[in-house]
Amino acid sequence: MIAEIIAVGSEMLTPYRQDTNSLFLTGRLNELGIIVAFKTIVGDNLDHLTSAARTAIGRADLAIFMGGMGPTQDDLTREAVAAAVGIELKRDHEIVTALYKRFAERRLQMPENNAQQADVLQGAVILPNSKGTAPGQWLETEFDGKPRIIALIPGPPHEVREMWDTDCMVRLREKVPPAAMATRVLKVAMMGESAVDLRTSPIYKKYANVETTVLAGQGQVEFHLRATAATKDEAQAEVDHLADELEEELEDAVFSSSGESLEEIVSYYLQMRNAKLAVAESCTGGMIAERITSVAGSSRSFLGGVVVYSNDLKTLFADVPPLMIEAHGAVSKEVALALAENIRELCNADIGVGVTGIAGPGGGTEEKPVGLVFIAVSDGHKHEVVQRRFFGDRERVRRWASQQALDMVRRMLI
Amino acid sequence: MIAEIIAVGSEMLTPYRQDTNSLFLTGRLNELGIIVAFKTIVGDNLDHLTSAARTAIGRADLAIFMGGMGPTQDDLTREAVAAAVGIELKRDHEIVTALYKRFAERRLQMPENNAQQADVLQGAVILPNSKGTAPGQWLETEFDGKPRIIALIPGPPHEVREMWDTDCMVRLREKVPPAAMATRVLKVAMMGESAVDLRTSPIYKKYANVETTVLAGQGQVEFHLRATAATKDEAQAEVDHLADELEEELEDAVFSSSGESLEEIVSYYLQMRNAKLAVAESCTGGMIAERITSVAGSSRSFLGGVVVYSNDLKTLFADVPPLMIEAHGAVSKEVALALAENIRELCNADIGVGVTGIAGPGGGTEEKPVGLVFIAVSDGHKHEVVQRRFFGDRERVRRWASQQALDMVRRMLI
Repeated sequence: MIAEIIAVGSEMLTPYRQDTNSLFLTGRLNELGIIVAFKTIVGDNLDHLTSAARTAIGRADLAIFMGGMGPTQDDLTREAVAAAVGIELKRDHEIVTALYKRFAERRLQMPENNAQQADVLQGAVILPNSKGTAPGQWLETEFDGKPRIIALIPGPPHEVREMWDTDCMVRLREKVPPAAMATRVLKVAMMGESAVDLRTSPIYKKYANVETTVLAGQGQVEFHLRATAATKDEAQAEVDHLADELEEELEDAVFSSSGESLEEIVSYYLQMRNAKLAVAESCTGGMIAERITSVAGSSRSFLGGVVVYSNDLKTLFADVPPLMIEAHGAVSKEVALALAENIRELCNADIGVGVTGIAGPGGGTEEKPVGLVFIAVSDGHKHEVVQRRFFGDRERVRRWASQQALDMVRRMLI
Repeated sequence: MIAEIIAVGSEMLTPYRQDTNSLFLTGRLNELGIIVAFKTIVGDNLDHLTSAARTAIGRADLAIFMGGMGPTQDDLTREAVAAAVGIELKRDHEIVTALYKRFAERRLQMPENNAQQADVLQGAVILPNSKGTAPGQWLETEFDGKPRIIALIPGPPHEVREMWDTDCMVRLREKVPPAAMATRVLKVAMMGESAVDLRTSPIYKKYANVETTVLAGQGQVEFHLRATAATKDEAQAEVDHLADELEEELEDAVFSSSGESLEEIVSYYLQMRNAKLAVAESCTGGMIAERITSVAGSSRSFLGGVVVYSNDLKTLFADVPPLMIEAHGAVSKEVALALAENIRELCNADIGVGVTGIAGPGGGTEEKPVGLVFIAVSDGHKHEVVQRRFFGDRERVRRWASQQALDMVRRMLI
């Protein structure tokens, strides 16, 4: 079975936006042994969209349309697919009612144009959308005498994921021979890509049956391992064996062996050790707190913290002595450590983090250039302060600094 | 003239890699007033590639193939395009000689398969490649009685850029009427997509010459306007005129009229008013601070703030009386307002922001469900507190809450 993914939206035909949903979908299709043979990106133009739909449904067994399912006049996917396949759209009154109800619950009046979201391809199954208003559609039909599956799903990434995993995977699994694929994702913090590859390529090159992809960015290197075999156990054994060898080589630089993010791992370790965390951030401006609190349940181990951008606030909220700032500068080892120690004590936490640096693009000097960051972690008994120079733009410096801080917390908890 | 970009390479049909060259090419084509109507991604498979080539050359005036131009057996673009158009490939002996010379200069023997890089579509102009071995090709022909331009260029990004700018732009400029394009981006905060569209589609539909794309997500709706005309001034006048009408209709819901982000606008207004901001965040966990500090130069107007996840910290860092939390709950109008008022006073800021809510997925009750958020802004003289119920996952609730808070600060500064 070959698939085509059609991403619908004029914004993806500008120099500014890209389709990213198709990466997620491709991963899921590959799990089922389905190959993506074509991806098409087409704008909100009825002729173009109908042409793309006809081509896709002509050449692929499975055509997945993403986007163009909303309530606006630009949302033309339903209409284009109906025209391409030569079937009718019917307005589904249950969906219309549900739409009215959804608006009523929010005490809003439903704009009339919303009703087009209830137009369903004749013969299609309706896929409920728990994350948005536009339902999806699943049609099994014939085209030019060949069996075809056509899926219509909304474009917002969280809706794509939810709808695909809830309603599409089960339907598709029935259509393909049981495939036995196993995957693993290992993540490594704060090591360069070439250093990691130098040490690991002799290892993963031995495993001809495991497809290994090495990806680097944002202060981490990821190994994506994938194996296909006669049985799930066999495939799993192959990826696990390689994963074990990689972990042995890289030791505790590997922070995640099942794909978790660094903030998830830190949250997990904190809860396991029953430890509470507090942070005092200057140049990262809340990014460390934001990353930790993005993990559900993080309130059990994260107390909070302070964003002390100005010097006054460093003193007010984290008791950093003005004389220390005067003597060493706000961006200094001493201030980073004071932030970590003091926030820990003030918040009655077990571990404190302090970060101060120059994110840029302005504010650098010869002595203290853009990208210079001091990061401190303390648990009251021992502490660690590191000085780093990160390269790149403001966002990259902040991201790497937050990554370094989270990795130091992780190492302190191991 | 409409264009289609065909990116060739099986790696772009995995979950890990994306075509990015097309963003660069789209920018260049738009400069000439050429619209990209389709993008296709296809693997190194002769049947698939030939089918994609036939489709593209059938529907677009200009078809640009990137990739599949190298010396390996996987490099099939030349062969596929020849088959699709129904013309011959001829081996060019000058290119073969040049290839031999290139290898000889490096004291290497040329592998035989390298010679396929010299196979040229009959009638095509050869485009020299200063950055690699595979030359490009430029063919002006007819297909189904219609004039067609077909460009074949290698895939590596630096080769694409060099070859496009050196050899393709000049050729293309001769083919299109001198045209100029102008663009504008308007952004609207905290209004639903369909409500915005209902009010604005009667306006933008009147402007047949301006292409309007409406994008929604993360608590904002964006209008991307684009017009092409004989001169830059004329094109600019068209988009500006529509932009003015849209702003008039939506009034101060439009926070940005040249594409700036909400945090950039807030930073800009703060600096313009010489006002200082401080924030006290609970459920947003630092996201508001992180967003503001992502703007370069924000330290001039952002003092900092506190992330008060636990009740103790709400009292410690933002003086919220424990009795208030007991009486109304941590997620309440009263606590949101106390956070805003107190952080403003404590930090000696002009404007204070307080946010408290239930981001989920846990922690909701019937009375205070997941997604309930109170957001307060105060400038010491006047204040505003709103109660909102956001839908979606943890990330979405937090994002919308931070968006609402930033938009309230913006409105207070207008």
